[in-house]
Amino acid sequence: MAILMHDLAGADPALRFSPYCWRTRMALAHKGLKVETIPWRFTEKDALAFSGQGRVPVIQDGHAVVADSWAIAEYLDDRYPDRPSLLGSSTSRAHVRFINAWADGVMMGGIARLIVRDLLDVVAPQDRAYFRESREQRFGTTLEAVQAGRDTRVGEFRATLSPVRLVLGKQAWLGGEAPSYADYIVFGSLQWPRCASRFELLQKDDPVAGWREHMLDLFDGLGRQAKTV
Amino acid sequence: MAILMHDLAGADPALRFSPYCWRTRMALAHKGLKVETIPWRFTEKDALAFSGQGRVPVIQDGHAVVADSWAIAEYLDDRYPDRPSLLGSSTSRAHVRFINAWADGVMMGGIARLIVRDLLDVVAPQDRAYFRESREQRFGTTLEAVQAGRDTRVGEFRATLSPVRLVLGKQAWLGGEAPSYADYIVFGSLQWPRCASRFELLQKDDPVAGWREHMLDLFDGLGRQAKTV
Repeated sequence: MAILMHDLAGADPALRFSPYCWRTRMALAHKGLKVETIPWRFTEKDALAFSGQGRVPVIQDGHAVVADSWAIAEYLDDRYPDRPSLLGSSTSRAHVRFINAWADGVMMGGIARLIVRDLLDVVAPQDRAYFRESREQRFGTTLEAVQAGRDTRVGEFRATLSPVRLVLGKQAWLGGEAPSYADYIVFGSLQWPRCASRFELLQKDDPVAGWREHMLDLFDGLGRQAKTV
Repeated sequence: MAILMHDLAGADPALRFSPYCWRTRMALAHKGLKVETIPWRFTEKDALAFSGQGRVPVIQDGHAVVADSWAIAEYLDDRYPDRPSLLGSSTSRAHVRFINAWADGVMMGGIARLIVRDLLDVVAPQDRAYFRESREQRFGTTLEAVQAGRDTRVGEFRATLSPVRLVLGKQAWLGGEAPSYADYIVFGSLQWPRCASRFELLQKDDPVAGWREHMLDLFDGLGRQAKTV
């Protein structure tokens, strides 16, 4: 039986742009597990009541219910130890947690400040008021003001990716000789702007962009086939 | 026979403040290897000619000569696989490389901009002109200008440590249940300002400061016993 996954969708149900859901989609593919996604909108909190919280991704694997992309990665490695490992040994897992924290603390905010107004154009009509209000409260200003001046600010964002760039100068994947969950964390974060916005965050000759092309090819082009705006 | 290590020293030969040498000192202690340090000054390039380059740390382990703190960590794990691992499995090692790149790309520059003028006061007299000239060339301005305004800027530096803080909210060490080389990377970087400057980078209630106290206790207080200005 396929694993069920609630996945953030836009006004177009085929548009799936959540950075955390993308981490989980890639993780499930890495484990070779079949998934059936259920489109979900920000305001459908009731639909997630069974998980005891209100955010996606949430997976249902038989009787198991797991929310939060990091917890899902840990669950998948613990539940399916004979399938390709996402996180590696317990020490390796501890180290990936740093990369996850870096992506959440640095990358996610950086990307949001470049595309958050674009997101308003792709969310479902019933989500628009919620999206604007909740994000404007978080940023303390309008979505338009947050996104303003992005053409001149995008360079700062690119500079924050220097650790990724440095590592990719030494090895093909963040996971070393093969992709690991570390790659899915960073790639998933980049699928967010790639799917939901036409603003290009990476320069073509950036090694991060080159690595992303390889990521897009993984699992029969899972990431590349994703609908974009 | 003890491993020999060239270690950056100040005007006071007992003052050892190189962040990269500290990473290696901790790594050697983690492996349970004896070390004999040789004080070295920036301008003593000839003393390192045997290593084919001009920076510390350099270790000599019998006939083996290894320069660069990251290369030394890899060497120690490869050469002494039966002693406690620094980097873990090859996948884990790949993930630590990200933490190393983050520390080098984000932490080191951030610290330098807070204490680089203080360093001038502790380097050996024969190093002072070299130190000022090489660093001012790197920053494109005077050491005094680089360090100016640090009381108001230190908050920005503390914010960049958020990934460390997030991880330490989940686990005792960056390495998980026990310190790994990831801990020595970040700790070594913090020994630099701790030994060479009186400017306090961390707030007392910062979880990073709490973790540093535990790091200072490791290996019979190796880090705590270090001379400070």
